[in-house]
Amino acid sequence: MSGVHGLSEAQFATLSEKAIAAKEAAYCPYSKFRVGCALLCDDGTWVTGANVENASYPVGICAERTALVKAITEGKMKFKAIGVATDIVPPASPCGMCRQFIREFAELDMPVIMFDNDGNHVTMTLEQLLPVSFGPGQLPT
Amino acid sequence: MSGVHGLSEAQFATLSEKAIAAKEAAYCPYSKFRVGCALLCDDGTWVTGANVENASYPVGICAERTALVKAITEGKMKFKAIGVATDIVPPASPCGMCRQFIREFAELDMPVIMFDNDGNHVTMTLEQLLPVSFGPGQLPT
Amino acid sequence: MSGVHGLSEAQFATLSEKAIAAKEAAYCPYSKFRVGCALLCDDGTWVTGANVENASYPVGICAERTALVKAITEGKMKFKAIGVATDIVPPASPCGMCRQFIREFAELDMPVIMFDNDGNHVTMTLEQLLPVSFGPGQLPT
Amino acid sequence: MSGVHGLSEAQFATLSEKAIAAKEAAYCPYSKFRVGCALLCDDGTWVTGANVENASYPVGICAERTALVKAITEGKMKFKAIGVATDIVPPASPCGMCRQFIREFAELDMPVIMFDNDGNHVTMTLEQLLPVSFGPGQLPT
Ligand SMILES: [Zn+2]
Ligand SMILES: [Zn+2]
Ligand SMILES: [Zn+2]
Ligand SMILES: [Zn+2]
Repeated sequence: MSGVHGLSEAQFATLSEKAIAAKEAAYCPYSKFRVGCALLCDDGTWVTGANVENASYPVGICAERTALVKAITEGKMKFKAIGVATDIVPPASPCGMCRQFIREFAELDMPVIMFDNDGNHVTMTLEQLLPVSFGPGQLPT
Repeated sequence: MSGVHGLSEAQFATLSEKAIAAKEAAYCPYSKFRVGCALLCDDGTWVTGANVENASYPVGICAERTALVKAITEGKMKFKAIGVATDIVPPASPCGMCRQFIREFAELDMPVIMFDNDGNHVTMTLEQLLPVSFGPGQLPT
Repeated sequence: MSGVHGLSEAQFATLSEKAIAAKEAAYCPYSKFRVGCALLCDDGTWVTGANVENASYPVGICAERTALVKAITEGKMKFKAIGVATDIVPPASPCGMCRQFIREFAELDMPVIMFDNDGNHVTMTLEQLLPVSFGPGQLPT
Repeated sequence: MSGVHGLSEAQFATLSEKAIAAKEAAYCPYSKFRVGCALLCDDGTWVTGANVENASYPVGICAERTALVKAITEGKMKFKAIGVATDIVPPASPCGMCRQFIREFAELDMPVIMFDNDGNHVTMTLEQLLPVSFGPGQLPT
């Protein structure tokens, strides 16, 4: 049977498990809103992240960006998929700041898979989530 | 003759002029990328903004968010349109962080009008720019 | 009688009044932590701000940065003093992100005056709040 | 011979090596300003980070915050020291936003050791870098 958005069934299952498990690492005493994120890197390895908040709210970092800076600074620059899990139904989507952060590194057709608390998910590509995006090509050089 | 996205022709012309003129106020010694923003508030008044950068790049604030915090803290909480002007062609779109900031206050069908350096523009609604957005309703209460 | 930190008594009184009044404009449904800010510009004019939060907490903007982007984009680039007011005792200080934002524009000896909810205040210079700061001079040109 | 700020000589040497080496992982096409960071965790393990920039400058993440979110989401919540390395002389200090981020997790007397490009360093405690800080205890509960 075919996989989902270019992922094998096993990869999809792992993405789901890892994104959901990553919520355990959240530091979110202010919002109480746990978010877990799992990245499937191009080389087949996995990187996970969770949100890390701050008493000065704007200083905190979301789960998606946590996972990405981990990956990037470990030399993993290309990605096959990103999964995001929260405790609500229907699933939450990445905030606009995270969509912008993902945009810097991911192909526009990379799937972003959002898992809710009931075992369901919604999938959209990065381009669907951040159409006509602002990106590296538009800055003066 | 009918207007554009619910704006009268005069309003549209003013939005364009104000967004373009607002670029003059940009403080962007690092990117050299000037952005101007004009907000048409629900009460018919105008608020403008520009990008304000910082030596620590993540600390800077984009033009759209500058205009919005001005408006919000002056008690203007509802908006008819937002215009964004840059010096490039085709026009630049708001970054994801700004789309998220706008989302907190604007209706999903509010037009975001992007002006380029050749007198042309592209219009999209907030919902088109930030589909399936993460918003206030999703946080625990 | 002499004034405080280079301010006349009248200026100090106005700074206090304006910072405290500015709290009314806060949009802080998530933290419920109102912050007001008043800037005394070099030309003797005043600019105020308040915190504007977002459902995605890291996207919000503090009161101090709100006041500063207002001032900067109105062409006011030099400041005599900044006042910050909250509803707690003893007074809250600006977060590190705001100290960094102020650093871009203010002299190191500019007073930052923090007002608490009991009519008391604490004053420190920017340099005292952000010693050995990272600033514009350290970036490659 | 005694160590530095509670670190053994070997720990200090490792901190320096790791912070400097971490610069290699920086993604900084916009600022061209590489920053590396090394964290010595309370359990004796090490976590490193580097700056990860974005075409929308405010969306980027500094080296110090990258290292910290890695550590925090791996369950390392306490730290003995943090080292920051750049390519300039004298050494750059953490920006205010990072000082605030560190503040959420570190003791006020934790040493922040800044390495320059000539093999020299400057050490300050977190409290020296962010005096009278805004922290978790000040928010309403
Ligand atoms: Zn986010
Ligand atoms: Zn933006
Ligand atoms: Zn702040
Ligand atoms: Zn920083």
